Amino acid sequence: MAQRTSGLFTGIYARGEAAALVSDESYWLAAMLDVEAALARACAAEELIPADAADAIGAACRATERFDLETLAVEAALHATPIPGLVRALRDAVGEPYAAYVHHGATSQDIVDTALMLVAARALVVIIADARAAADRAAALADAHRQTAMIGRTLMQQALPVSFGLRAAGWLTGLDAAVGGLQRVSARELAVQMGGPVGSRPHAVAARVAAELELTEPVLPWQAIRVRPAALAAALATLAGVVGKIARDVTLLAQQEVGEVRERDDGERGGSSSMAHKHNPVAAVSALACSKRIPGLVATILAAMEQEHERAAGAWQAEWGTQRELLALTGSATAWGRKLLERLEVDSDRMAANLAQAAAPAAPAPDDPDELIDRALQAHRR
Amino acid sequence: MAQRTSGLFTGIYARGEAAALVSDESYWLAAMLDVEAALARACAAEELIPADAADAIGAACRATERFDLETLAVEAALHATPIPGLVRALRDAVGEPYAAYVHHGATSQDIVDTALMLVAARALVVIIADARAAADRAAALADAHRQTAMIGRTLMQQALPVSFGLRAAGWLTGLDAAVGGLQRVSARELAVQMGGPVGSRPHAVAARVAAELELTEPVLPWQAIRVRPAALAAALATLAGVVGKIARDVTLLAQQEVGEVRERDDGERGGSSSMAHKHNPVAAVSALACSKRIPGLVATILAAMEQEHERAAGAWQAEWGTQRELLALTGSATAWGRKLLERLEVDSDRMAANLAQAAAPAAPAPDDPDELIDRALQAHRR
Amino acid sequence: MAQRTSGLFTGIYARGEAAALVSDESYWLAAMLDVEAALARACAAEELIPADAADAIGAACRATERFDLETLAVEAALHATPIPGLVRALRDAVGEPYAAYVHHGATSQDIVDTALMLVAARALVVIIADARAAADRAAALADAHRQTAMIGRTLMQQALPVSFGLRAAGWLTGLDAAVGGLQRVSARELAVQMGGPVGSRPHAVAARVAAELELTEPVLPWQAIRVRPAALAAALATLAGVVGKIARDVTLLAQQEVGEVRERDDGERGGSSSMAHKHNPVAAVSALACSKRIPGLVATILAAMEQEHERAAGAWQAEWGTQRELLALTGSATAWGRKLLERLEVDSDRMAANLAQAAAPAAPAPDDPDELIDRALQAHRR
Amino acid sequence: MAQRTSGLFTGIYARGEAAALVSDESYWLAAMLDVEAALARACAAEELIPADAADAIGAACRATERFDLETLAVEAALHATPIPGLVRALRDAVGEPYAAYVHHGATSQDIVDTALMLVAARALVVIIADARAAADRAAALADAHRQTAMIGRTLMQQALPVSFGLRAAGWLTGLDAAVGGLQRVSARELAVQMGGPVGSRPHAVAARVAAELELTEPVLPWQAIRVRPAALAAALATLAGVVGKIARDVTLLAQQEVGEVRERDDGERGGSSSMAHKHNPVAAVSALACSKRIPGLVATILAAMEQEHERAAGAWQAEWGTQRELLALTGSATAWGRKLLERLEVDSDRMAANLAQAAAPAAPAPDDPDELIDRALQAHRR
Repeated sequence: MAQRTSGLFTGIYARGEAAALVSDESYWLAAMLDVEAALARACAAEELIPADAADAIGAACRATERFDLETLAVEAALHATPIPGLVRALRDAVGEPYAAYVHHGATSQDIVDTALMLVAARALVVIIADARAAADRAAALADAHRQTAMIGRTLMQQALPVSFGLRAAGWLTGLDAAVGGLQRVSARELAVQMGGPVGSRPHAVAARVAAELELTEPVLPWQAIRVRPAALAAALATLAGVVGKIARDVTLLAQQEVGEVRERDDGERGGSSSMAHKHNPVAAVSALACSKRIPGLVATILAAMEQEHERAAGAWQAEWGTQRELLALTGSATAWGRKLLERLEVDSDRMAANLAQAAAPAAPAPDDPDELIDRALQAHRR
Repeated sequence: MAQRTSGLFTGIYARGEAAALVSDESYWLAAMLDVEAALARACAAEELIPADAADAIGAACRATERFDLETLAVEAALHATPIPGLVRALRDAVGEPYAAYVHHGATSQDIVDTALMLVAARALVVIIADARAAADRAAALADAHRQTAMIGRTLMQQALPVSFGLRAAGWLTGLDAAVGGLQRVSARELAVQMGGPVGSRPHAVAARVAAELELTEPVLPWQAIRVRPAALAAALATLAGVVGKIARDVTLLAQQEVGEVRERDDGERGGSSSMAHKHNPVAAVSALACSKRIPGLVATILAAMEQEHERAAGAWQAEWGTQRELLALTGSATAWGRKLLERLEVDSDRMAANLAQAAAPAAPAPDDPDELIDRALQAHRR
Repeated sequence: MAQRTSGLFTGIYARGEAAALVSDESYWLAAMLDVEAALARACAAEELIPADAADAIGAACRATERFDLETLAVEAALHATPIPGLVRALRDAVGEPYAAYVHHGATSQDIVDTALMLVAARALVVIIADARAAADRAAALADAHRQTAMIGRTLMQQALPVSFGLRAAGWLTGLDAAVGGLQRVSARELAVQMGGPVGSRPHAVAARVAAELELTEPVLPWQAIRVRPAALAAALATLAGVVGKIARDVTLLAQQEVGEVRERDDGERGGSSSMAHKHNPVAAVSALACSKRIPGLVATILAAMEQEHERAAGAWQAEWGTQRELLALTGSATAWGRKLLERLEVDSDRMAANLAQAAAPAAPAPDDPDELIDRALQAHRR
Repeated sequence: MAQRTSGLFTGIYARGEAAALVSDESYWLAAMLDVEAALARACAAEELIPADAADAIGAACRATERFDLETLAVEAALHATPIPGLVRALRDAVGEPYAAYVHHGATSQDIVDTALMLVAARALVVIIADARAAADRAAALADAHRQTAMIGRTLMQQALPVSFGLRAAGWLTGLDAAVGGLQRVSARELAVQMGGPVGSRPHAVAARVAAELELTEPVLPWQAIRVRPAALAAALATLAGVVGKIARDVTLLAQQEVGEVRERDDGERGGSSSMAHKHNPVAAVSALACSKRIPGLVATILAAMEQEHERAAGAWQAEWGTQRELLALTGSATAWGRKLLERLEVDSDRMAANLAQAAAPAAPAPDDPDELIDRALQAHRR
């Protein structure tokens, strides 16, 4: 489904740059044209097409404004892929004598899959940046609240004393682990697809396109072997899951009856349409609104691994919109999570008061949290 | 996420009217304003607000072009709901002396939930129409091919003779059952939400709003009791699942090695970007591209039933975009399924030839399919 | 996967009778033999086999202890279905001269699908009984606490006053709606499958088997049209979702900082392995442990609707274990939900104290909840 | 849910050693006792308990037959965890004077999480072994069929020539990638949990337990930070997804109308209960029966990442049975996939005949597949 970056629900579902990047149709168009241009350069370097043809194709690909999304949409429905229409339009734009060199030896899947990887690579940059900023903020909270005692809670019941710094250190390790996973995906799984119609194209062109686009060089074309899309989806879900955990904690700690944290009013949050006295944890709620939509999308990507022969009839096409949603919603969850941590106010007096009232055994000094917090901070700095 | 009805992938994911209806932000805006207008009329009828105020509010709600989606999106992010911004804008539009009567006694959830039900009701009309047209076409195929013998296939192996008419009759019963399910949801589950801030508003206003909007009157406000959204999602998924089954059969029967059906070239389907000789089953592939995205979305809706207290912090907000996707993708799958059945060509000679070559036991006359086909056709006509 | 009704985790995942019914392999065996016996009687009534053969088969089917599950498991792996081995064993048990009349005109799918429906029908009886008992208890709470004022909470923040009776009335409407859904499934969707190898068997035998087993008579054999399994899964998930909502509320209200409800110590609940002072909401936690496993299982059933030709290669076989889990876990969630409501203690003093401390606008008398509670109670009694 | 390794469906769902390992309750019991024993040794080494106590505890833990699963199941339901009952039984077994040193400083979650990691580590050994054997067989097929020409198929239509060796090389890269993922999880993600009641236990004991059990040492206790269970689930799903892709290809190529491969009759596969002439692809169907159950289970694990405070009320407990299913079903899918590849017969004559009849452009020599196949084989050998 096509998406705009504005609308009634996009304030919640599309915070941050990633959502904007993957939701904007013109961005996908640009990525597809980037792939066609890189393909032309690779073919020229391999002496499969004239160098002048590659130049002409490259120039046409940069003029993205000349491509009409409405027309492309209509043609996409004729073929169950947007590429035939795009190639036709690109050939028109290139004109004679080089039109015939457009899309040389390629197939729709080469362009769509590689464009998806390119879009993912660009979105991951901003998602990782937001996640790292969130982790930095969690680290600061862990460091600042090493000795801020609070009652630990298990099965949603008061248990034994712990420190808020250690809670924040836990958030930090989760964010760090999720960032590490996305970095590995970015470095290893985002590979070009350049196999030609049935995945048998020699590797040389793929290698050159990978270098052009700064994507990974795969062992083979991976047309119906969908390990890479699954790895991307799983890594995104891990980050969203960690953000969801943090947001859930904040909604619980921000209950008035608990009152141990709140989202600071930074001019970007508001009250209720019917209850002016309420102080809703808007960032936490919005982060959860996004993170809760992720697991079902991952199930779709995993179920779509069962792809027929050299190119699937349905399962592949189901991935496109699903990966877009995964990138957009994880990006939005992360941007909300970052905002949440940035505006988080900790009420250590209330923590102390709750702890004093807890039915925990008298004076079991909490284990000294410094050692554990130091471990988390050191791991974060690496 | 906001959606447009054009774009690189929307040709596939957004066929038919339903996708357009639910994807267009202005349509949601109109539905929300319809709810505010109906609420005002109900409050006037209950003598809670002046009749003149209801008239003024109604007039302002009809002027949907005066509301700016960009501004509403920005404000939605401040509150984790678009309603405070909408109410502010509506009050501006109504002006004095009636601005204060806007949204009388209501809360964000009243408007969002009721608008969702309204959007769903309207989308279901076109989804059901497409599904019924598809069923009619399946019925025609069943009737026309009562005695068109083919080899039945189980576990993807040739088994025993059957008739293509009986296969089509099976499709028909699936479509009919799915339509029945959607009709029951439409008649019974699409209920107004009008409980006020904590779900305790007396029933009279809800009853009047239900009558105004032709929605179901619930026993109670159902704020955090999400049986209705779950019922909607399940009924949509059932239809999409039946369409997916039909499309899967067509991709299998249309393999050149089988050759028993094909999608007729009706000027709206095309070939491959790299292989001009190919004749892809575009409608079947596109139907599957949509239907395969449904089960994961339903899992999201079901997991979101676990909602806290009087209004959930995250689970409710996660439903909005998910229900939109469910409606759009089921609508698109169904429109593709209808197209598929309309353009389906049956090659009875090839069926006979495949049957003759099958290793099935010599001459096991197929059971006479007429009785079963008649049962399916009679059930369809009811 | 085979399941026992005892084990390290079964105390949590397999409470109540339903889990035992569907988890016990011998119970499935008995259901399959019930189907074979009913088939034999139906064939005799249709004069397809001798009446004496039906008697002999019926007698052999009742002697379930003579069938060895280990042997059947080994043979099931040879065929991707347990039926060939079962038929062989049943023929051995029947002996001459009637062995050849066993499984007359039937196929594996007839027996497995009909046995699943039979198992589901029997499990639904106990699941519905537990759900109705839970609903009765919710009704009693609603009635008893009509005027027990508490602070309503939205987005996990204190909002406006409401009554605990109204909260319980909401639970009641959810349980009642879920029971209604399961009753409709029980009455309408649990149909015999009796189509023979390729689904073309005339209806007469199916009609007689349906009458024998008190299952629904379908329009056609529904071999690869999986609307019925989907309807069963969705109705189970709806009940589990409602139970999950109630259990989530209880975990929240039972937090010591809130303290408005607790699970009474009825001798069947205990403390922590490390913290003797803790009073964990065991029933609520266990109900959630089960309900959270449901949505993913439903996604599996829905994705499995895409079944090939006359019988699917994989999707059908994936349903068996999944439906078993759905029945067992929904049954266990419901049994825990019933227990939860039976042992729920309401602390109206604490509710009053929390309400008095809430920052809600001074003295906004709650809407009178009696009208709404009466609506819920009346609907329940119908 | 507790599982046995025999039963009506286990022939399909529980092939191979992994399913047996994780399904056997006594195996889980042994793992939990291994953790208690390792904890005792670690505490003794840290001089927290007497060395003699550790010896006595270790001896009691080795006598697993003295623990009664029925009793433990009953007690598990009292606490929503099996550990209090296990600790009680272990203390009884240890007797005086050392009973009090059992479970020193630990909490239920320490034992359950670490035991899960231990069970997973052991199951991964056999799953990886089966996956590597399957990959070896795919490599042999790729090497043997480098020049076995076949028609490539995209969107389930004949496209252009390719070689069967290249298809097998694609399977190989998928299996290799999935094995790599599981090896990384095994080396990095399977970490001890040893945080004590609220996750604040100093690291020294955790480090020693990790060394004892050959598990990973985590930065911090990861009680409610569920990145590790998510990583395990995702890696399992990736392998199952690749196996599902291979099995889907085999069901398609084994259709009689295509006839390019079949499962060899190795004495362990059979025909139909009603159609003796059929030759069903039993391994492929069974692999798909397992692989199709995975995506929904992963969605459950991902949704369960949203865990409250120091220990979740429901989400954690929902993981246990789900991870067990993931391990068992992925193990079974992989064992079936290995069997499938071992018994696969390739009909190169039929491939040539289908290719000759294909409407592909005259004589487009396939790209020479040797380079690509060599790349896959070299990557496999590394």
